[in-house]
Amino acid sequence: MTKAIHTMLRVLEENRSVAFYNTAFGLTIADRFPFDGFTLVYLRSPDADFEIELTINHDRKEPYNLGDGYGHIAFVTADLDKEHARFEAKGLKPTAIKEFFREGGLMARFFFVQDPDGYKIEVLQKHGRYR
Amino acid sequence: MTKAIHTMLRVLEENRSVAFYNTAFGLTIADRFPFDGFTLVYLRSPDADFEIELTINHDRKEPYNLGDGYGHIAFVTADLDKEHARFEAKGLKPTAIKEFFREGGLMARFFFVQDPDGYKIEVLQKHGRYR
Repeated sequence: MTKAIHTMLRVLEENRSVAFYNTAFGLTIADRFPFDGFTLVYLRSPDADFEIELTINHDRKEPYNLGDGYGHIAFVTADLDKEHARFEAKGLKPTAIKEFFREGGLMARFFFVQDPDGYKIEVLQKHGRYR
Repeated sequence: MTKAIHTMLRVLEENRSVAFYNTAFGLTIADRFPFDGFTLVYLRSPDADFEIELTINHDRKEPYNLGDGYGHIAFVTADLDKEHARFEAKGLKPTAIKEFFREGGLMARFFFVQDPDGYKIEVLQKHGRYR
């Protein structure tokens, strides 16, 4: 069988992206591989096997086109209000917390944040199916 | 702490995407939520917590712009040759298997496949750091 192990994102500046994912989600560098022309950085959470792989193409200067197909990566947290306040305090500019109802019940409680290249990331309260 | 739980992709046709992810990676529908204007489908593997969330916007007809920033999702498998042959037999048109060396040793052995909307997916041999 097969198992999802990472999502790869191309980013312009290694240091600011590594700092963002560490501050926002506690991800740390599991491995870093510099090659001619590009560097790969694997960011890992202590809480999950799934990694974010950053590709930094050294010659790339202009912002990447993020398109309108790829949506977001989602993280779940046990205390959304606390995380939202922490994101605000860290200057990460999270959107306001939203609640999404379905068939009269709370389905999801979440906010969004953007990484330094503009990739959207959803932060969900641990609730219902999101855990 | 926070944990990555899904990646969201916008796709044009629900059925062909669900069929693809099932055939290619054994993902099955964990939940499906139809709303006015859009449907959410959560695809899950028996081998991992991480899900793919498909968003189908009912009015969307033109192909999504996938941009050049988002790279791929990666899956790992215990037998890459067998999976490659199976993908070929199923008509999924995988790229040829490639090997990537670093400092004289095999770093990665992999192929790519595209889902029905063109999102690239990497399939890696379980080896070294990829597991």
